[in-house]
Amino acid sequence: MRIQYRAVGRDVGRILQIVASMLLVSILIAVVYGEFYAVPAFAASALIVAGLGIGLARAFRSAPEIGKLEAMVTAATAWGAVGLFGGLPFVLVAWTIAADPYPAWANTPQLTETVATFRHPVNAVFESVSGFTSTGLTMATVEEDLPSSLQWWRSFTEWIGGVGVIVLTVAILARPGSGSLTLYQSEARSEKIHPSIVSTVTEIWKIYLGITIAGIALFFAVGMPLWDAINHAMTGISTGGFSVHADSIGHYGSPLIEYAVIPLMVAGSIAFPIHYLLLKGEIRNFYADIQTRWIFIWFSAGSIGLTALLWVSDQYATVEETFRIALFQFVSATSNAGFGTTTLGSGTEQVWTAGPILLLCVGMLTGAAAGSTVGGLKLIRVLILLKGTVWQIRSVFVPDSAVRHLHLGDRTLGQTQVEREFTEAAVVFVLWILFLMLGIAVFLWTLSSAYPLEYVIFEVMSAQSTVGLDTGITGPDMPMAAKIILLFNMWVGRLEIIPVAVLLGAILQRIDLYT
Amino acid sequence: MRIQYRAVGRDVGRILQIVASMLLVSILIAVVYGEFYAVPAFAASALIVAGLGIGLARAFRSAPEIGKLEAMVTAATAWGAVGLFGGLPFVLVAWTIAADPYPAWANTPQLTETVATFRHPVNAVFESVSGFTSTGLTMATVEEDLPSSLQWWRSFTEWIGGVGVIVLTVAILARPGSGSLTLYQSEARSEKIHPSIVSTVTEIWKIYLGITIAGIALFFAVGMPLWDAINHAMTGISTGGFSVHADSIGHYGSPLIEYAVIPLMVAGSIAFPIHYLLLKGEIRNFYADIQTRWIFIWFSAGSIGLTALLWVSDQYATVEETFRIALFQFVSATSNAGFGTTTLGSGTEQVWTAGPILLLCVGMLTGAAAGSTVGGLKLIRVLILLKGTVWQIRSVFVPDSAVRHLHLGDRTLGQTQVEREFTEAAVVFVLWILFLMLGIAVFLWTLSSAYPLEYVIFEVMSAQSTVGLDTGITGPDMPMAAKIILLFNMWVGRLEIIPVAVLLGAILQRIDLYT
Ligand SMILES: [K+]
Ligand SMILES: [K+]
Repeated sequence: MRIQYRAVGRDVGRILQIVASMLLVSILIAVVYGEFYAVPAFAASALIVAGLGIGLARAFRSAPEIGKLEAMVTAATAWGAVGLFGGLPFVLVAWTIAADPYPAWANTPQLTETVATFRHPVNAVFESVSGFTSTGLTMATVEEDLPSSLQWWRSFTEWIGGVGVIVLTVAILARPGSGSLTLYQSEARSEKIHPSIVSTVTEIWKIYLGITIAGIALFFAVGMPLWDAINHAMTGISTGGFSVHADSIGHYGSPLIEYAVIPLMVAGSIAFPIHYLLLKGEIRNFYADIQTRWIFIWFSAGSIGLTALLWVSDQYATVEETFRIALFQFVSATSNAGFGTTTLGSGTEQVWTAGPILLLCVGMLTGAAAGSTVGGLKLIRVLILLKGTVWQIRSVFVPDSAVRHLHLGDRTLGQTQVEREFTEAAVVFVLWILFLMLGIAVFLWTLSSAYPLEYVIFEVMSAQSTVGLDTGITGPDMPMAAKIILLFNMWVGRLEIIPVAVLLGAILQRIDLYT
Repeated sequence: MRIQYRAVGRDVGRILQIVASMLLVSILIAVVYGEFYAVPAFAASALIVAGLGIGLARAFRSAPEIGKLEAMVTAATAWGAVGLFGGLPFVLVAWTIAADPYPAWANTPQLTETVATFRHPVNAVFESVSGFTSTGLTMATVEEDLPSSLQWWRSFTEWIGGVGVIVLTVAILARPGSGSLTLYQSEARSEKIHPSIVSTVTEIWKIYLGITIAGIALFFAVGMPLWDAINHAMTGISTGGFSVHADSIGHYGSPLIEYAVIPLMVAGSIAFPIHYLLLKGEIRNFYADIQTRWIFIWFSAGSIGLTALLWVSDQYATVEETFRIALFQFVSATSNAGFGTTTLGSGTEQVWTAGPILLLCVGMLTGAAAGSTVGGLKLIRVLILLKGTVWQIRSVFVPDSAVRHLHLGDRTLGQTQVEREFTEAAVVFVLWILFLMLGIAVFLWTLSSAYPLEYVIFEVMSAQSTVGLDTGITGPDMPMAAKIILLFNMWVGRLEIIPVAVLLGAILQRIDLYT
């Protein structure tokens, strides 16, 4: 099959227009916070992105409706383009502050080291990709030193990216038909609520906005300043994890706030169709939906296990503190939110030992529900892999002639269906492991061997599962190759690998290495 | 289906009789080397095992022919029993030397620390399981201090275990029919040469014996003493890796010997049916057989990669030395032989860094050809996993209606067949990863956190892939729980997991936890 590159170009153009609107909206924040020096930077970014987006969409206006193949190529390309151009405001604001070209009323601040970092385009793109993929790894050493408009831009990219730029595009363009559906599915947030794709997407945004507002109210009520509450609610429900403080949620030193953040991370872990049903009063879905049930089982079991490991290693003073830290960190890792309340590691200096670090890695690997904002393999895939494996072993115990079924939540699968779904999950699993190994290999090659292996694994896993927790390796001083590979792992992880693999396949096919 | 436990009992009994014969044969070695004090220990071991074996076989003489289910349960049980009882001579000889009950002409030596270790039954069983699974991890600190009869017993267990105790049983009992075939397949050395299972097995033993003799001649020719040549040829072709020296092949400090050992490890990596064809003059199978081709590709690529990593980390003086060490260690790891010519790690003290250690881990994980004496996942499974994954991604590029095939060596698979074989390989892969994680968890729980994670992973991987290389963790002083879990990993790994999983399933079913 030949790829309709013109259709890809048109749809990427449309998606870029959404990013341009996001940039325009953000100008308001700069104005409200009196950061007038930042207005031209945001405006210029918006113009560039809008120009490109409108240009592409116009040029390929007459392209045909897209199929599955183009949808995947579009998703992979669009996420790359969005990440790239989302870095513009970081670079432009940083250079504006460095150059200080405006009169005093523009309020240009002193250049801090944190802002200076973003003059380098790779750091800016890293921050943007980390935002749109809702990862939360950061090049900002001291978040407090960022202008409010950039703090907002970080949170906004995560909030939009959590549900998906494509989902937003579909909602706004309200274009019905199979093209929207295939695109939507390629973005890996794909359970339908309504029969119509456009009303599904609209419904998702309503729920999302509602929970965000509830989160802001909750955080404000437990004592966060309003600005912090807005940002943390946005990055919490999107399981993004950017914070306005260098010490993340640990900044407040308040157990009450720490416990209050957990429900929002859990909400971000639950699939939107389940939220929809729960909001309609069908409370039984907490238990009846297999993924939701396993969220509670896995979060509880993991937190208790982590408490035990941390308690044995004498890391914290009291049982309550140990439990609170274990619960927060495990939920943050497994919901892929990436907020923190403690230091996991200081690069070459060991804080947490290999045991608890690897338990968090397992949490990050599985992630939570497909159809929510989390990354990772997703619980449904993990369940299919495990149940399918047990099912295969049990096949030895039944006669060859027996007709067998596998129960998965409220679904019943036959032999062929089990093999098909198991194969699909296993393909993602195999690719996941391969890309992790690639990231780990690049880290080991470029970093000093003084970094413990568990920290290296953690950091790559955190990027690929779009978590954002770190052990002190990720930062502006890390080697360039390590930054690039993390960018790659975030991109691959956010799209659940297959669309990126298809894009790479298409490129290889194009240059005739692949037939 | 109900399991015919009487049939299992009968077949385990028959297999134990083979072990009894092995013990009887070994008395000869004790006599030839004048170790008369060891004769009663070996004789008593033989009597105990023979009594049990004959008793079981007689008691369940009338049991029916076995099916697939019983074959798996038998394989798992038999390998457990063989490992357990193979430890008898270690315990009995060690206690004999400690007690020194015989007159002077029995030549009882002084008790060394190495021999004293084996008074503990767990250490003795560890050595026996490591031998029969052809792993080569050892509780003997200084192999030179072992009596010749015990050195022989270690090599002999590996030599028999390499091809398989069950294969030997089938060959000797010459029992045709489906029972033999299913048993044979459950032992995971299962490609047929002849249509008849008995003649296949006989042919395998002829080839095996022939290569062993050729290996002895080669090693003797390049300068090993005869005793060393015999032992190393036996443990080389079986890819077992026990040595009569504490420094393994590094003992000789002879590049010539080191290069000479490599072809034997490669021979051990190639499937017996291919040896059969090659010996019949069909040289094209070096290339035509997909696994054999990939042995040469993978061994070459891995050795070159390892050379680069070691050269960059400035570990060895010259390029030739670096290459020789990299080649030997990579071939030893990937053929799962487990001979060594250098120190990889000294427990908590780092020698090799994480990069080269993990590259060896990847080699150990893949292993070489199914149908040879190696452990690990086997190349054919790795190829199915990788090619199947690419195949799935490429399905996006073809219309749904297209009829597609996957070429795997000289086989052509249709859609259903690809999914079935991919599923089977993925099931083994998933279980492999789970059991590795279990081993790593136990190590992290029981060992000091001063051991680098890469060494912990290496040690567990080495046991499960039945390799036997170590980074200085395995030894008589390690915690009991770590010894037990390595025993488990060796047992699981040698049988390629499924039979053990089936046995565990059967036990759970028996105690009604599992329905
Ligand atoms: K995150
Ligand atoms: K071995």
